[in-house]
Amino acid sequence: MAYYPRPILQLIAQLTHLPGVGPKTAERLTLYLAGRSPAELEAYANAFTGLQQALHTCRSCGAYAEEDPCGICRSPSRDPRQLCVVAKQQDEVAIERTGQFHGRYHVLGGSVRPLDGVTLEQLRLEPLLRRLREEGVREVILAFNVDVEGEGTVLALKQALQPYVKSAGLRVTKLARGLPMGSDVEYADEVTLGNAIAGRREA
Amino acid sequence: MAYYPRPILQLIAQLTHLPGVGPKTAERLTLYLAGRSPAELEAYANAFTGLQQALHTCRSCGAYAEEDPCGICRSPSRDPRQLCVVAKQQDEVAIERTGQFHGRYHVLGGSVRPLDGVTLEQLRLEPLLRRLREEGVREVILAFNVDVEGEGTVLALKQALQPYVKSAGLRVTKLARGLPMGSDVEYADEVTLGNAIAGRREA
Repeated sequence: MAYYPRPILQLIAQLTHLPGVGPKTAERLTLYLAGRSPAELEAYANAFTGLQQALHTCRSCGAYAEEDPCGICRSPSRDPRQLCVVAKQQDEVAIERTGQFHGRYHVLGGSVRPLDGVTLEQLRLEPLLRRLREEGVREVILAFNVDVEGEGTVLALKQALQPYVKSAGLRVTKLARGLPMGSDVEYADEVTLGNAIAGRREA
Repeated sequence: MAYYPRPILQLIAQLTHLPGVGPKTAERLTLYLAGRSPAELEAYANAFTGLQQALHTCRSCGAYAEEDPCGICRSPSRDPRQLCVVAKQQDEVAIERTGQFHGRYHVLGGSVRPLDGVTLEQLRLEPLLRRLREEGVREVILAFNVDVEGEGTVLALKQALQPYVKSAGLRVTKLARGLPMGSDVEYADEVTLGNAIAGRREA
């Protein structure tokens, strides 16, 4: 038996398709939305349909963009010799926000997950290798999460890039490990503190 | 500086208006949606705009419904002498799912929150009193959360209903307190166990 009117049930069902949104969250959001004005609901609908229009995937780096190629890939002020490989566009945006990187990006489209059958070849490895051959890249920076998946992806990429290291002197780096901002030495976990000691720098 | 293309920024901004959805969640959902098909996005948009159409608020109980009055208020098989007052429609649906209640409902539209300036008079108290005068209600069941807000609302309603108790012999009840299903006596909190003892029943 349906306890809610049909339009409410339909929106609840639709919202539960979203990742991380369960039936209770969908119910709560829908009942909130039922109390909004028609104009507000129209704004939501437009934002969803608007996602289609004017949105491309950059053929070079794989990021969503309004133009193809994207602004960063086209920009003459970005250094083509440095290429930062990230799992997803959110990671690229996080690095852009630091203002510390002036090269280009490559969105791999995920991490290697052997248990789920996701290999490097199913991600955007081939476009990456093509860029190495065509764009004069001197350094590839692997910017992945510091967890099993991320470390595994770094390892797999390092192996896949080995031919370019040997033939073209490509440099392959990864993000530094160490103490995060605001941390206490006393309370840092052993792995983090060990990494911080091993990776120590001139003061 | 905008790090994402405009359609993505627009959907992120729109989703952060939802209760409980912060900027990071909105970003994650939007990037997920950017990878879906046009038909899927259309389905989301339609579910939002469809919420308008064919959705009414029942003039009697205040619940969202496809007809006005709603199915429960119109049903001849529901007992008009029992009226269950709930803060929101989700609570009504939870009680309907138990199959234990065969009266009617009244959606108060929230709880009394003195610190936020929300009094009983700003909620659907007036329509409730009108129903007491018109519908032959013999018992009002106050089904509110067992927390400070809920208990405060029960207290305020009890006072507001006092004239009907005195003049018309109205019975005002609230949900039983006690041990929830699957609980251990040993690990029950003191208030719950105290309520269970005070409210003990014949075995």
